[in-house]
Amino acid sequence: MMRWPDKDVLYTVIFGTETPAGRRFDLLLIVTILLSIGVLFLDSIGWIREKYGLLLSALEWFFTLLFTLEYGVRIYCSQNRPAYIKSFYGIIDLLAALPSYLMLLMPGASYLMVVRLLRVLRIFRVLKLMRYVSEAQVLMRSLNQSRRKILVFFSALFTLVTLFGSLLYMVEGPENGFTSIPTSIYWAIVTITTVGFGDITPQTPLGQGIAAITMLMGYAIIAVPTGIITAELGREIRREYDFRHCPQCDRSGHDRDAKFCKHCGGEMENPAQDKQG
Amino acid sequence: MMRWPDKDVLYTVIFGTETPAGRRFDLLLIVTILLSIGVLFLDSIGWIREKYGLLLSALEWFFTLLFTLEYGVRIYCSQNRPAYIKSFYGIIDLLAALPSYLMLLMPGASYLMVVRLLRVLRIFRVLKLMRYVSEAQVLMRSLNQSRRKILVFFSALFTLVTLFGSLLYMVEGPENGFTSIPTSIYWAIVTITTVGFGDITPQTPLGQGIAAITMLMGYAIIAVPTGIITAELGREIRREYDFRHCPQCDRSGHDRDAKFCKHCGGEMENPAQDKQG
Amino acid sequence: MMRWPDKDVLYTVIFGTETPAGRRFDLLLIVTILLSIGVLFLDSIGWIREKYGLLLSALEWFFTLLFTLEYGVRIYCSQNRPAYIKSFYGIIDLLAALPSYLMLLMPGASYLMVVRLLRVLRIFRVLKLMRYVSEAQVLMRSLNQSRRKILVFFSALFTLVTLFGSLLYMVEGPENGFTSIPTSIYWAIVTITTVGFGDITPQTPLGQGIAAITMLMGYAIIAVPTGIITAELGREIRREYDFRHCPQCDRSGHDRDAKFCKHCGGEMENPAQDKQG
Amino acid sequence: MMRWPDKDVLYTVIFGTETPAGRRFDLLLIVTILLSIGVLFLDSIGWIREKYGLLLSALEWFFTLLFTLEYGVRIYCSQNRPAYIKSFYGIIDLLAALPSYLMLLMPGASYLMVVRLLRVLRIFRVLKLMRYVSEAQVLMRSLNQSRRKILVFFSALFTLVTLFGSLLYMVEGPENGFTSIPTSIYWAIVTITTVGFGDITPQTPLGQGIAAITMLMGYAIIAVPTGIITAELGREIRREYDFRHCPQCDRSGHDRDAKFCKHCGGEMENPAQDKQG
Repeated sequence: MMRWPDKDVLYTVIFGTETPAGRRFDLLLIVTILLSIGVLFLDSIGWIREKYGLLLSALEWFFTLLFTLEYGVRIYCSQNRPAYIKSFYGIIDLLAALPSYLMLLMPGASYLMVVRLLRVLRIFRVLKLMRYVSEAQVLMRSLNQSRRKILVFFSALFTLVTLFGSLLYMVEGPENGFTSIPTSIYWAIVTITTVGFGDITPQTPLGQGIAAITMLMGYAIIAVPTGIITAELGREIRREYDFRHCPQCDRSGHDRDAKFCKHCGGEMENPAQDKQG
Repeated sequence: MMRWPDKDVLYTVIFGTETPAGRRFDLLLIVTILLSIGVLFLDSIGWIREKYGLLLSALEWFFTLLFTLEYGVRIYCSQNRPAYIKSFYGIIDLLAALPSYLMLLMPGASYLMVVRLLRVLRIFRVLKLMRYVSEAQVLMRSLNQSRRKILVFFSALFTLVTLFGSLLYMVEGPENGFTSIPTSIYWAIVTITTVGFGDITPQTPLGQGIAAITMLMGYAIIAVPTGIITAELGREIRREYDFRHCPQCDRSGHDRDAKFCKHCGGEMENPAQDKQG
Repeated sequence: MMRWPDKDVLYTVIFGTETPAGRRFDLLLIVTILLSIGVLFLDSIGWIREKYGLLLSALEWFFTLLFTLEYGVRIYCSQNRPAYIKSFYGIIDLLAALPSYLMLLMPGASYLMVVRLLRVLRIFRVLKLMRYVSEAQVLMRSLNQSRRKILVFFSALFTLVTLFGSLLYMVEGPENGFTSIPTSIYWAIVTITTVGFGDITPQTPLGQGIAAITMLMGYAIIAVPTGIITAELGREIRREYDFRHCPQCDRSGHDRDAKFCKHCGGEMENPAQDKQG
Repeated sequence: MMRWPDKDVLYTVIFGTETPAGRRFDLLLIVTILLSIGVLFLDSIGWIREKYGLLLSALEWFFTLLFTLEYGVRIYCSQNRPAYIKSFYGIIDLLAALPSYLMLLMPGASYLMVVRLLRVLRIFRVLKLMRYVSEAQVLMRSLNQSRRKILVFFSALFTLVTLFGSLLYMVEGPENGFTSIPTSIYWAIVTITTVGFGDITPQTPLGQGIAAITMLMGYAIIAVPTGIITAELGREIRREYDFRHCPQCDRSGHDRDAKFCKHCGGEMENPAQDKQG
């Protein structure tokens, strides 16, 4: 039997990712999460639940107990327990196990099943610890810097969708499937995003004409968010290729031609341009 | 009871956005507009109108009176009355209240209801006054500069759509849903914009082949407006970064969060975000 | 009655665009073309043809005679007649009038009607003469320079579509609408371009899984043509802002930092960078 | 009759592309591959197989023998036989002929027919040898460098699709076509990629609201892979322009069609296109 390990060692294995044991734990955790999600998937398919319901239920309890144990160990070995419990991943870890217990108390509460699917978010914790963090940061920083432009874009989009939707409601009316303004706005979103389910379609020539304009607008204005994010991403990626850190404050994110740190004003070493540019 | 306020104070509150009172008024206005739109939405849903028709009608009149009052006060306190009345937002403000009165005279004029939805445009007035204006300006300037290229692109698109539409009309014919050239052009727009409702689809092998070419063209040429807008936006965003100049060396190209000049290390003034952002 | 004008004057009016008369002629021509296309559109709508068939037929002959006259005058006044007749627009001009005469000889040849729609291409001649030519050139040059990359992209796309289509044919089979490999490839094109008509959809779980992969590929690889064209367009647009012409050979298209003409090696005047960059 | 050629000569013709004979062989091979694929296509269409089944079968055997012969000659004349046989194209060459023989042993094994369609991949070998290789390399290098960002993007996409899919499963349920979580995730992929088949659509207002959010997310986040690839491609294409150096001043950044150095006016060597293009 395994010796009960030291709290710090446990912490390194469970929360860390530098040691071989930590890596092995992360890999095991991802596999377990994916398997437990697979069980939830299979359980939602009628004929599989009927045939293998007992087995799936047993597996679900096996994973629930495993996640309960993991949650306990995480609380046990974390250095700042209340901080962990209140953290985003602390709550996600709790939600991985809790719903199964609650379903004992409230049988038939099907929304608890979807809560269990939040387990999928736990995969990001592992990714976060691995070396994809800088890639994700570049994407997040670009999205963050284009935040307000995208908000302006979506405000304009919502206005367009409201106006075109209510226009179609007026032109086509309930007899052609445009039963209410919210439904017509739903149709306008389906159309302007170029999804085009085809469950509601205009039947009158005028309606088809307005629909054609809606489509062409959707086709053209998708260029706007793409342009915003491309411009910001291009900037971030260009900067990513500059690995220089400020020798004073050690912060990065400098332009290639920067001679002084933009954070503390300290002098930077030779621009990287000549070496790698 | 509130003391009747000074004309200039009223102006600052209603048209301005710098004072706390002005901000509070803007927020209140947005909430009122959204609520009045919500009432219009609910009123268009059959079973809700049947059940709560009277309540919705009362609410609509409440908002109409509110917007009438607001319009009156705006006229009263604006420095140049005719200019305000003839301005874009002056007309939108009028259209927020007028249709309800007209419906008393012309009952059943359903298009007046859609006019009332133009209220949604009033939200932009508030946004315009807030600090999203520079973001919107960057987008508008990019769209404006790519105006003529996009016009050329749309001319080419309309030609393609006319030719492919009439080709499909000839190949498939009315028996497969391509009842006329305008309908076939509608189909071609649905297809080339990758919306794809599926209400009209080619049935013959030749028609499907031509449709496949239409789709591939639509898939490829969407790159053109995206490329145009991205290139112009990139230019605008680069210029946006050039807005701040170092007070020591007068050079630009600083990030929005830069505290020190990257060229000479001199301290930068307060990030421009507050002023123009 | 109008005096029979001089051949050179006629040439300036009909082929040129610099004089007020030339501009008026161009505008008139565009309106005539659009009207004649409108007549063709209306003629294809069943109930309109039944009701106004005679009127539409008369209008069509009116436009045919007008285009015949125009074609005759263009031949008469062009400086190099055989060159005009064999040129792209010479053929298009002929095709604007010819099909109507041929339909007298071969009644019921409906494909001739579509040939008449090629009149829409005549609009480009007018656009070409107007100031949109440089905008179109930027677009064409970008497309031309990305020509080979786009060809590689489409080769890869065709391979993907063949493999996924035949895979779905094997998995789903004729009973689910995938009646043959060409039909399945048609489905794969509909799916990978994100058009998604929904006339053929996979029904088996395995088929749906493969379809999901097809969609995600289509969703991701649309980035490739967009990226290609954006990169080339960005280059072209940056260059467009440099209006400099080589003083020796008068050719343009120079980079902003160019000191010597890339075509003839002659020295360029001061880079425009400082003035407008 | 043709003299049995030297092994090295054969190698130059079959594997090489520099000699006229080698080019002619490549062209012939592409035509043969396309014809053999065409036969497979026609054979999958019910009424054609019934009518011309024997002819198609004969043609298929003709191509099989041709590809068998080609495979034999390739093994015979390749300098390192085991390396060729184990290489990617060695296996593809084998799979071009093998399935037809296996179908003699296992009649009715329809999946073998799809294996035969892998012949389409052989076209790339020819393209690879031709001058499209540098274009393809630019695309591959860009995709390769954005590999990890795209992986992060797809992880986020899968999470979104799982959460939105199961949410719709809970809200809509099996009675509206969302029969299981995997089916609902399939729907979410169809929706977020903007394909929108319309075979499964939400019917409840809440479901339509969540669907609208899914579509808007799909519409907006397509900007992310596009931005990533555009940024990397821009870098690669810029580098492509840096490939040519001026023999006088050794500076780069020249256009592909530049005849003179833009920095010093010195004559450039022959456009690089022929060498690397």
